[in-house]
Amino acid sequence: MIKRVDHIAIAVSNLEEGLKTFENLLGIKSSHIAEIPDQKVKSAMIVVGDVEIELIQPTTSDSGVAKFIEKKGEGIHHISFEVDDVDKELDSMAARGIELIDKQGRQGMAGKIGFLHPRSARGVLVELAQKL
Amino acid sequence: MIKRVDHIAIAVSNLEEGLKTFENLLGIKSSHIAEIPDQKVKSAMIVVGDVEIELIQPTTSDSGVAKFIEKKGEGIHHISFEVDDVDKELDSMAARGIELIDKQGRQGMAGKIGFLHPRSARGVLVELAQKL
Repeated sequence: MIKRVDHIAIAVSNLEEGLKTFENLLGIKSSHIAEIPDQKVKSAMIVVGDVEIELIQPTTSDSGVAKFIEKKGEGIHHISFEVDDVDKELDSMAARGIELIDKQGRQGMAGKIGFLHPRSARGVLVELAQKL
Repeated sequence: MIKRVDHIAIAVSNLEEGLKTFENLLGIKSSHIAEIPDQKVKSAMIVVGDVEIELIQPTTSDSGVAKFIEKKGEGIHHISFEVDDVDKELDSMAARGIELIDKQGRQGMAGKIGFLHPRSARGVLVELAQKL
């Protein structure tokens, strides 16, 4: 079951510049910066109420996020929804005809995650996240 | 002050098809469909926890949302943040160097709203919303 919106991820070319922009805009300081080698990005979170705004900067030119920025420019990259059980949810979605990027959950920064294919969500990249 | 994420708006070519997609994906029924003549769209909301997913379909070919879809395809159109006082917030943001689309708040579907320019938010269209 989808419980809530966990975070909204925004692709930026430069994390420090991106943070300046959104800290100034939102009037909120970011919490922490982390490298996610698996996804070839570094990221920072700005907590807005119950939802996090995640800024992600590609760390390699072959990162999926680098390709996203090259093609579409900076902007919203994905929405992440919290679920209780990623694997169960991915199975259930596949059974409902939803195309998956990840057939099984894998380890993300803050828990187990899985991505759905944008083709199954009107162009929106959707992440499911099961918190630690 | 930015209080919380109010909604995430997704531009779709056809509202009924878009609703089928996201009701199936999220496992949640939509709440209501409304026409917003001012913005030349019709919209439906799906409530996910504390945040709404708004689907918007352009109702005219000169709608901003029609142009968005033509240029970028279906996908996330804007993020809306709740504030206490739109006009005060727009003034404060202008003073902090943020470029605005709306210099003053105007009437939206669920309250007073104002848009910031994507140039000031790394390509993200940001709405501020003051609830009724």
